[in-house]
Amino acid sequence: MSAPSSLVALLHGPDRPGLVALVSGWIFERGGNILHADQHSDLVTGVFFQRVEWIPAAGREAADEREFAAFAQALGMNVRVAATARRPRVVMFVSKFDHCFHDLILRWKAGELAGDIAAVVSNHPDLGDVTRGYGLPFHLIPVSAATKSADEARQLALLRDLNADLVVLARYMQVLSADLLAKFGRPVINIHHSFLPAFAGGKPYHQAAARGVKLIGATAHYATADLDEGPIIQQDVARVTHRHGIEDLVRKGRDLEKIVFAQAVRWHLENRVLVYGNKTVVFD
Amino acid sequence: MSAPSSLVALLHGPDRPGLVALVSGWIFERGGNILHADQHSDLVTGVFFQRVEWIPAAGREAADEREFAAFAQALGMNVRVAATARRPRVVMFVSKFDHCFHDLILRWKAGELAGDIAAVVSNHPDLGDVTRGYGLPFHLIPVSAATKSADEARQLALLRDLNADLVVLARYMQVLSADLLAKFGRPVINIHHSFLPAFAGGKPYHQAAARGVKLIGATAHYATADLDEGPIIQQDVARVTHRHGIEDLVRKGRDLEKIVFAQAVRWHLENRVLVYGNKTVVFD
Amino acid sequence: MSAPSSLVALLHGPDRPGLVALVSGWIFERGGNILHADQHSDLVTGVFFQRVEWIPAAGREAADEREFAAFAQALGMNVRVAATARRPRVVMFVSKFDHCFHDLILRWKAGELAGDIAAVVSNHPDLGDVTRGYGLPFHLIPVSAATKSADEARQLALLRDLNADLVVLARYMQVLSADLLAKFGRPVINIHHSFLPAFAGGKPYHQAAARGVKLIGATAHYATADLDEGPIIQQDVARVTHRHGIEDLVRKGRDLEKIVFAQAVRWHLENRVLVYGNKTVVFD
Amino acid sequence: MSAPSSLVALLHGPDRPGLVALVSGWIFERGGNILHADQHSDLVTGVFFQRVEWIPAAGREAADEREFAAFAQALGMNVRVAATARRPRVVMFVSKFDHCFHDLILRWKAGELAGDIAAVVSNHPDLGDVTRGYGLPFHLIPVSAATKSADEARQLALLRDLNADLVVLARYMQVLSADLLAKFGRPVINIHHSFLPAFAGGKPYHQAAARGVKLIGATAHYATADLDEGPIIQQDVARVTHRHGIEDLVRKGRDLEKIVFAQAVRWHLENRVLVYGNKTVVFD
Repeated sequence: MSAPSSLVALLHGPDRPGLVALVSGWIFERGGNILHADQHSDLVTGVFFQRVEWIPAAGREAADEREFAAFAQALGMNVRVAATARRPRVVMFVSKFDHCFHDLILRWKAGELAGDIAAVVSNHPDLGDVTRGYGLPFHLIPVSAATKSADEARQLALLRDLNADLVVLARYMQVLSADLLAKFGRPVINIHHSFLPAFAGGKPYHQAAARGVKLIGATAHYATADLDEGPIIQQDVARVTHRHGIEDLVRKGRDLEKIVFAQAVRWHLENRVLVYGNKTVVFD
Repeated sequence: MSAPSSLVALLHGPDRPGLVALVSGWIFERGGNILHADQHSDLVTGVFFQRVEWIPAAGREAADEREFAAFAQALGMNVRVAATARRPRVVMFVSKFDHCFHDLILRWKAGELAGDIAAVVSNHPDLGDVTRGYGLPFHLIPVSAATKSADEARQLALLRDLNADLVVLARYMQVLSADLLAKFGRPVINIHHSFLPAFAGGKPYHQAAARGVKLIGATAHYATADLDEGPIIQQDVARVTHRHGIEDLVRKGRDLEKIVFAQAVRWHLENRVLVYGNKTVVFD
Repeated sequence: MSAPSSLVALLHGPDRPGLVALVSGWIFERGGNILHADQHSDLVTGVFFQRVEWIPAAGREAADEREFAAFAQALGMNVRVAATARRPRVVMFVSKFDHCFHDLILRWKAGELAGDIAAVVSNHPDLGDVTRGYGLPFHLIPVSAATKSADEARQLALLRDLNADLVVLARYMQVLSADLLAKFGRPVINIHHSFLPAFAGGKPYHQAAARGVKLIGATAHYATADLDEGPIIQQDVARVTHRHGIEDLVRKGRDLEKIVFAQAVRWHLENRVLVYGNKTVVFD
Repeated sequence: MSAPSSLVALLHGPDRPGLVALVSGWIFERGGNILHADQHSDLVTGVFFQRVEWIPAAGREAADEREFAAFAQALGMNVRVAATARRPRVVMFVSKFDHCFHDLILRWKAGELAGDIAAVVSNHPDLGDVTRGYGLPFHLIPVSAATKSADEARQLALLRDLNADLVVLARYMQVLSADLLAKFGRPVINIHHSFLPAFAGGKPYHQAAARGVKLIGATAHYATADLDEGPIIQQDVARVTHRHGIEDLVRKGRDLEKIVFAQAVRWHLENRVLVYGNKTVVFD
């Protein structure tokens, strides 16, 4: 895992000869030590992708972070630089289902996440006590069709108060509006309980049972204005047979959802996920 | 594997108490010995499904086959009874891709299939020599949009001449019309190179790459008048990353297609696949 | 899932014609309704295995349970009959690792288990508060080499007081002696963090890393006097690469251990696991 | 896939700051264009591993190949440089089993391998005709315990005549002696039909059935003087149940063996496998 005080840069842009040498040379010249460097050139589109993690020379962390971004932009790259010592603040949205909720909190407590869960937000009171039992703040913001705009305004104000870097939707049963997503302006990860693009929308396990598929799936993706259409981060499937009724699909699906959701959140927090267009590059 | 001279019955119909006892009692009373009996009751729809395989008493094979069907129908069941000693005749349709073609023929030669490949039919001459090299007849029937009706009439006549029990489409690049399927009246198994219902239609690997999925799939299903909508027999997936270009998806997909296709054909030939509505029950 | 008040019988013994008919006929004659019947004949060893679940006629539950056992024994069968309404009492042994501990308790609370966790026993105090936070009794019984015999006597007395039907070792870091296992006389399920028989004994992830395997595994098995040699109930694996250090194997392994352990416990509690010799038949 | 005329270097040695910059800078300065660069630092052992592939400047292929090796050695690295335009010559050893044999030849003919199958060697005549049917030379060298030394001398002479770069043992049922391996001095890839280190030695499917495992496996590894102990390249598993007899394990195992064997050979031929100690780093 990452040593303390490292920097991680995610970059992508037009490929050209010498990029790997330029980037690694820049770091080396400033006394940095590269821990990981992973790059990919898409020969069809001519796009270069890189994740590079390094330990800056003593005292140069802030300077490297600032200057690397400028350097990469001068190369024509989109770039994001993160200091691993600055742990992102995660806000989890839930409704009544609690499997992804427990799973992510327990992983966080076990030290699996490179970020911190700052609070839990819900449109139902059900998970309030257990959230507080974990020592986490619980914010109840009911949402109704009639008041959705005001409800989302409260959510947005809360996210700003909490200084949230990331929102994760742990089977939150409301759609975040395009307006909220735009105003928040930071990443939102959702878990959908199907192998997208199959069975988008509601009741995907029922859809799967009706179609008679032999595998069910789960998909973690960034939430965008187009429901279930955002960039996919991770997916997995499990085998089912005619012996599995809907409740078995739901039960098996919970295990899929937990693992796929946690992987996506973990990778995001470790700055392993680069979004370009409607797709992701995951440097795992 | 099945012992020689056994009978296999696939039945389904309205559930009611005592069906297992009635079926097994019927066989026992006639001196039959049950090798396998696998049943399932769908508690939601109230449908009973069973696959039962038995060795009839000496000399009673034909009688059991005939009488069991009548017995099951009297119980209100849909039923199909097959004698495993009578090996189904399989006709394989191909175009230019040869991976499923080679794979299925080699499995047949290795004794993995409870049926026999009787002939290969193609709309292109490319696989003629290698088919004959395997000692199998090759029938070239070109198909064009302008002459499709006449072309399918030739295909149908050939299938009748060959006394085909099953047609398998080993990446055959033409759609069989609803009319041909109806006139043939026997099962047709197709392999589609995606995880249906995702990416139905043409160029599924390109669709998958465009959507940025993290798993690619293959689906074997019975062909029906609705393209890519028939009952699914088997599906599987393989993991892909941003490092995999289209040609890598195609290469990885070939392995999926081969295995999924061969499993579906093998199960069908062993009378393990029961179709009801647009779904299958696979007794594997 | 099982309907209320059903009975489940697990039987195995010498195969002979008519067993399925005899068993199903016996149930039918007494007004029972078979929900599931799954049987297997091992053609090599000539052993018949069956799991049959039925709803007895009103008022006949106790009689059916008692009389079926006698009936099956008269057929030469080993038999175990369980009433699903009588939920087994499970005692969980833990040390310091808490991932299987949390996972199994949360599944129980989610209604996934056909039994109840009665108490948690540990040789360390670490998980005491969180156990009590779940509303479960926590029993601290330290174990040392010098006092192991007396320590195990306390464990045995506690298990008898608790009327435990099943003990599950959730990464409990002590070996239960052959003597304790014999005196307890009821099943004990252990989770081992390797794909047995590879890497039995201590520090299996370190062993796996040293050997350079490409998959790590986890195995749930019944504990027997021979360490890591008991009948295997379930196993699974996950892919690893050179990028995964020991701590990554441990992290990935936790997910394997949780799922494999929970599946084994769930199947056992649903009376789906039949032990014969040193192997299991799992009717899933 | 690799563009023509590229060079691939595999290096490993003591890690130190600046290695990525030094390597990429060296290539850039000579006008080379890096296609892929994948590196890994083992923080525990302090070893740096890299696979780098580049297109040299026009006319500099031979010079880059020679000079890069010297450059890397001066950095303290073990290094191997390969020109992808020079396709390795593969010799396949077989006995009677033909599934890996057909599979690898068909993949080669489909263009999946970055090398060429030069000949097939067998201790049995069975696969002679089908080898020649593929247009490949077949060399029969019977092997017996009494004459093994002389038999291996013939094998070695043949490998030298054929200028073999790689030997692949496609279920070849004889052990190559340590002496033959040493004298040949080039890599030998074997496929073992178990999940090593479980079930080394003979009849692994029988061993697996006797132990009652729930997954069977296959392992491709480099052959060394210690049987079944060489560096593992790839492994995979498939699920089995009590319904699978030995012949089912063998049948399911064939699919595993084919895929695992082909992956290992393909990766080796693409210079993706770096051996250090008794382990491999696979840059896939």
